[in-house]
Amino acid sequence: MAEEVILLNFWPSMFGMRTMIALKEKEVKYEHREEDLINNKSALLLDMNPIYKKIPVLIHNGKPICESVIQVEYIDQIWSDKNPLLPTDPYQRAQALFWADFIEKKLCVCGRRVWRTKGEELKAANKEFIELLKILQTELGDKSYFGGDKFGFVDIVLIGFYCWFPAYEKFGNFSMESECSVLMTWGKRCMQRDSVSKSLPDPERVIGYVLYLKKLFGLE
Amino acid sequence: MAEEVILLNFWPSMFGMRTMIALKEKEVKYEHREEDLINNKSALLLDMNPIYKKIPVLIHNGKPICESVIQVEYIDQIWSDKNPLLPTDPYQRAQALFWADFIEKKLCVCGRRVWRTKGEELKAANKEFIELLKILQTELGDKSYFGGDKFGFVDIVLIGFYCWFPAYEKFGNFSMESECSVLMTWGKRCMQRDSVSKSLPDPERVIGYVLYLKKLFGLE
Repeated sequence: MAEEVILLNFWPSMFGMRTMIALKEKEVKYEHREEDLINNKSALLLDMNPIYKKIPVLIHNGKPICESVIQVEYIDQIWSDKNPLLPTDPYQRAQALFWADFIEKKLCVCGRRVWRTKGEELKAANKEFIELLKILQTELGDKSYFGGDKFGFVDIVLIGFYCWFPAYEKFGNFSMESECSVLMTWGKRCMQRDSVSKSLPDPERVIGYVLYLKKLFGLE
Repeated sequence: MAEEVILLNFWPSMFGMRTMIALKEKEVKYEHREEDLINNKSALLLDMNPIYKKIPVLIHNGKPICESVIQVEYIDQIWSDKNPLLPTDPYQRAQALFWADFIEKKLCVCGRRVWRTKGEELKAANKEFIELLKILQTELGDKSYFGGDKFGFVDIVLIGFYCWFPAYEKFGNFSMESECSVLMTWGKRCMQRDSVSKSLPDPERVIGYVLYLKKLFGLE
């Protein structure tokens, strides 16, 4: 049976970037459908993700898989013959899942506060954001990638932030290079992979999008 | 090599209950160490979970695994010969992970608001809590367990709420039986398993604990 793979996505989404990268790592051909999240969600999106009504949604042979981290795991399991993403060793696997969960629960939540707040709240968010990145930087250590020598699961979960860093720097008023240079080097290393560079938008475009959102939410 | 399995836990934790149930389902012998979370966390806990400093921590042959959902997956992978908990089919597996994530992200967060808030905030939390339970009830449908005929992963992730329901009812002023009778029947069914009934504390004791916390936080 010919595989039908559709990705419902929205270009600035770090979550959608994860799924795109995983598909590209596995060399899976897929149809990319851009959603208009702000003005007009498609009937297909509402039908395929009735609980959250959010992108990214991966539709594989008509069946939806929701939540980007779960999508990456699913892609790794289905197309297991090429570029394994998660370790097979149960302990290493649990560690990878732990850091993915940390990025989801802590960094994503705090990152939103960096561009959605002002004054003292923004100061606290900036401080926490940098602390969280430093924890991740310590975990990376002197390895090339989070899993060791090979680009893998945790790299995919985190790398979407790389194209958002200039926006965080601009609105949070800090310098990633001076705060987290090791993480920036890791980001540049990841960007040498086609799967990553072809999935991440231009950081200037992300800044423009955040400016648009700040106006929309009355934050400017 | 003899297996050394230690669980750092605190009895009212729904998260710790998940790990206990998974270990019991696999008939793994383990040492249970109760932590004094409020007054005196052990040096072992701080050493084994330096990021969150929280229970439950599963220590297997000296190595820590943190976060209960990840622990259940780990236990399922290590002791794979008995009572499989997660489906092997990638799509079914993705669905199970989706509902576990829903319980983590939505129900656990909202549940906390039911006993930590007052007035209008409490009313909104109650309403959302019941809506979330009804979504889970719809997903359960007329199946015996979330995965079908067999007790499994999503049941383990959710069942800890069962011994907290009387506390939610008391502080949220609603009736689980009239709001979510199908879920209550499922809870009773799960309680017939030794792994569950031996892991969940007496609901009256949970009510006492919540009363204690409310006083501690100045909510009474």
